[in-house]
Amino acid sequence: MFDNINIVLVNTSHPGNIGSSARAMGVMGFSKLSLVQPKDFPSEIATAMAVGCDEILENAIVYEDLSGALGESSLNIGFSARPRKESIPTLSVDECVNKVITNDAVTFNIIFGNEKNGLSNEELLMCDYIVTLPTASFYSSLNLSAAVQIFTYELLKKSLDNSTSNPATQKHINLAKTKDKEAFYKKLIDLLKGTNFITEKNSKSLTKKIHIMFNKAMLEEHEISILRGILSSIESKINS
Amino acid sequence: MFDNINIVLVNTSHPGNIGSSARAMGVMGFSKLSLVQPKDFPSEIATAMAVGCDEILENAIVYEDLSGALGESSLNIGFSARPRKESIPTLSVDECVNKVITNDAVTFNIIFGNEKNGLSNEELLMCDYIVTLPTASFYSSLNLSAAVQIFTYELLKKSLDNSTSNPATQKHINLAKTKDKEAFYKKLIDLLKGTNFITEKNSKSLTKKIHIMFNKAMLEEHEISILRGILSSIESKINS
Repeated sequence: MFDNINIVLVNTSHPGNIGSSARAMGVMGFSKLSLVQPKDFPSEIATAMAVGCDEILENAIVYEDLSGALGESSLNIGFSARPRKESIPTLSVDECVNKVITNDAVTFNIIFGNEKNGLSNEELLMCDYIVTLPTASFYSSLNLSAAVQIFTYELLKKSLDNSTSNPATQKHINLAKTKDKEAFYKKLIDLLKGTNFITEKNSKSLTKKIHIMFNKAMLEEHEISILRGILSSIESKINS
Repeated sequence: MFDNINIVLVNTSHPGNIGSSARAMGVMGFSKLSLVQPKDFPSEIATAMAVGCDEILENAIVYEDLSGALGESSLNIGFSARPRKESIPTLSVDECVNKVITNDAVTFNIIFGNEKNGLSNEELLMCDYIVTLPTASFYSSLNLSAAVQIFTYELLKKSLDNSTSNPATQKHINLAKTKDKEAFYKKLIDLLKGTNFITEKNSKSLTKKIHIMFNKAMLEEHEISILRGILSSIESKINS
């Protein structure tokens, strides 16, 4: 999966972020990681944070500079926290994901800069496109591995959406038949007349509310059976 | 922003995950955090990981149990790594985000379980809906704060998309508070033990089914009042 996509981390300061980026990738089905001048790698901290994805770290390739890392691939997409002055074409996340999904014969580099300073202007110029993830705050910025997570998640989600129109979330349910629901409502209303909860005066309004309330539950066949069983048990108790 | 949304972390083992969840929230404009029995909090590690979002940690409320944390809110959405056997209604991420966005008068709890074990079956029963994030791997799982990041990112992204369009379609509804729903369930279950509908043997299974069935109805405050009135009238009749 996603063999044509290379995640490139540039000048990463904290090894923990390399490890958690590897985990973020692995969980979503990505495996190709390139590191440009990481400050501290290999590192036990990185391995600890990778949790089950250490193979990605073992296979990661370390480069001296960004242009070396980008060599074999065709399309370079840089992630940047701030919109830049440079007039490099920008993509929204959705546009970026669509571009990657619809070009699976193309090899992509998805490039993330240093935690503090992001990608330098020189590095940005190697990018064909820039993506800025939406955020709400001026006071804080996305963690590096959180950005990797959002990208890899978006791509997996989109590719699952495309592969089938999700049969996963669809569960087979046997909704209760109308006649069975009506029988339940009648039985409940009769019971509540017996307990004086439903009176001549409130009958119309309460009957309506009871219907609405239970209809909202999209009751299934086995649930109607339970509800009717409940009423029978109460009736027996009252008549005993 | 997002004042009606409470992020609830249950039994978190690692304080670093609490801190990075706070950062994940803050970056996307969220501020309300509840912690249920965190293993180690407050903690310097949490504060270090929050980077610029420590105010969220300072204002976080710590609870002894999940039902305490959920008390005043109306709709509870649990995140679960595995699809569950229980037939609690599931939502895709997009469905979840749409539900939250289109109901900004409702208070939501978005609930994340322990790093290793997720939410317990008992905790899941307090959820009106379950969301499972898409992943690609059987060998590794999403980091806790990565899951928080994906949810908060999706919600911010969607709300930015929407901010220009449709303020109309919203209907004002007063969903029942969790504590009132729990009180109703307890009263109903006690009654059904009295009628011998619930026995030692079926208690666990029926308790679960009753929760699921009524949670599906998205009960409003006035409906919970009706249901509690119904139970009182039945009790009086039985005891008369």
